Amino acid sequence: MSKNPKLAAVEQYIKALTTHDMVAIANLYADDATIEDPVGSDIINGKDAIIRFYEVAFSSGISARLDGAVRICANHAVFPFIVELNPGNGEMRIEVIDQFTFNDDHKVVSMKAFWGEQNITTP
Amino acid sequence: MSKNPKLAAVEQYIKALTTHDMVAIANLYADDATIEDPVGSDIINGKDAIIRFYEVAFSSGISARLDGAVRICANHAVFPFIVELNPGNGEMRIEVIDQFTFNDDHKVVSMKAFWGEQNITTP
Repeated sequence: MSKNPKLAAVEQYIKALTTHDMVAIANLYADDATIEDPVGSDIINGKDAIIRFYEVAFSSGISARLDGAVRICANHAVFPFIVELNPGNGEMRIEVIDQFTFNDDHKVVSMKAFWGEQNITTP
Repeated sequence: MSKNPKLAAVEQYIKALTTHDMVAIANLYADDATIEDPVGSDIINGKDAIIRFYEVAFSSGISARLDGAVRICANHAVFPFIVELNPGNGEMRIEVIDQFTFNDDHKVVSMKAFWGEQNITTP
C-alpha cells in the first residue's frame, strides 16, 4: 500500500523547509493556493506570492521538524511542528500547527499556520 | 499577569474530559456553539446537543492529555492531545488536534476536531 498522499505531502514539506528546496515547495501548492501565516494576518494569494513568502523564510535560515502525529481527516492534514530560524545566530524557535487543505489532485489549496507570540522562544 | 484565557480554557477542557466534569464542559461553550468532530462529519449545534455529545464520550471512559504546546493566534487556540477510551478494557488511543474558536466573552463558539483512522491505535 502506498503512503497516504496527505501524509507524504506533509513529510515532503517539512523536509523542503529544512533543505530550502523551492522546487518541492512549488510542487506542493496548487496555482491558486492561499497562505495565512499566522492565521489573522494578510492572506497570500497564488503561487508567485507563495514562492516569495518562502524566499523570505529560506533567507532566515529556517529549519523544521515534526513535533507529533499528522492528523488526517476529510481533505485536511493538520500537524504540529517546530520551526527554528537563524540557527547559531540569535536562534528563534516557534511551535506551529499548520492546516493543509487539499484539492482532488493532492495539491495544497490552503495553508493556515496557527502560532502566536506565546509560541516563540529565544535563547 | 493572569494566564491567557484561551490557554486556561484549553487546560480546563483537557481536565474536564478526564474528570468527566460536565459543568466545566458546559461552561466552556457559548449557547450557540458548534462542534465538528471529526471534521467532515455532521455538525452538532447548540449547548443541549453538545452536552449529549459529551455524555456519550464520558460513557466511553474517556481520558485526555495534552501532547504539545497550545498554539494561540487571533481568536483561536489549536492544540494536540491524546484521547484514551475504555482504559483497561479494549483501550483505544486517538491522536487529535482540536481548534477552538472563541467569542469576545472567551467562550468557545466552534470546536473542530482533526483526526482520522490513521490516528487511532488499539492494543
